[in-house]
Amino acid sequence: MHANSSSVVNVDHEFRAHADHHASLRLWLRLLSCTTRVEDKIRQKLRESFDITLPRFDLMAQLERDPDGLSMGELSRRMMVTGGNITTIVDQLEKEKLVMRQVGLNDRRSFTVKLTPAGRVAFTDMAIAHEEWVAELFSGLSNNQQSQLYSLLGAMKKNLQKQEETS
Amino acid sequence: MHANSSSVVNVDHEFRAHADHHASLRLWLRLLSCTTRVEDKIRQKLRESFDITLPRFDLMAQLERDPDGLSMGELSRRMMVTGGNITTIVDQLEKEKLVMRQVGLNDRRSFTVKLTPAGRVAFTDMAIAHEEWVAELFSGLSNNQQSQLYSLLGAMKKNLQKQEETS
Repeated sequence: MHANSSSVVNVDHEFRAHADHHASLRLWLRLLSCTTRVEDKIRQKLRESFDITLPRFDLMAQLERDPDGLSMGELSRRMMVTGGNITTIVDQLEKEKLVMRQVGLNDRRSFTVKLTPAGRVAFTDMAIAHEEWVAELFSGLSNNQQSQLYSLLGAMKKNLQKQEETS
Repeated sequence: MHANSSSVVNVDHEFRAHADHHASLRLWLRLLSCTTRVEDKIRQKLRESFDITLPRFDLMAQLERDPDGLSMGELSRRMMVTGGNITTIVDQLEKEKLVMRQVGLNDRRSFTVKLTPAGRVAFTDMAIAHEEWVAELFSGLSNNQQSQLYSLLGAMKKNLQKQEETS
């Protein structure tokens, strides 16, 4: 009988573990779905309103935060895409005079990428529109719900960082 | 004085709108960051453990849910990537005998893509590991926090769907 109840407990634990796993998986699929929908909507609006791709907008957003410019390696790290793609995007934006390459003072083989003044003006317009679209896309949640969501995602992000540090 | 207080109210509203916009933007950037981190981790683990890319895993996951197979158009719609990429992935998986093309009974020009029995076995192993990784990645949140997050994202998703229907 002891053996029996112990086995029941084990089955329960196992069942619970599976149920928890399933719940996490459902949560992940919903998180992914929400993110993808928002991203697709932003991608579509950037194309319609400014005829620009999302990766190009993202790259300009990274440069806007660093007026001194960023190296290709740093840009690549921040955008989490491959170096090859970054080079293509920078080439296109340079052709349109929205970004410029600046050769390093100490090392002439290195260079940084910066927004041009025209690129900065163009980005500001897009950033204002982008912020309005995002507010609209999240408008189904009350301020209170948004701040709950922000705080739960904060706890999650902190844990992901911890896992990365210890792995 | 009336004019003055009205102007103060307007400024307050405007400030509030900006503050709300900023809060939504911060929320979106955090949502995007969490999703990207989880996705990168899963991508890395799929490569290390099963030598498979995330798009290939996703495509097999779509097929696993439909034992009768899916048309290329339907696959493309579900994976939200371009038709060209889907064809490349299907070609690779077919070469490895994990999926097969089946010509339509009524229309011989049309075909559906299905998992092969070997593909189904291979996918089951990956899906079990995938579910464990996801549970681990979300383990920083308690069950209660996960269910709060699930429900907030549910409200958000519902609103995004409503916006898509009315736009």
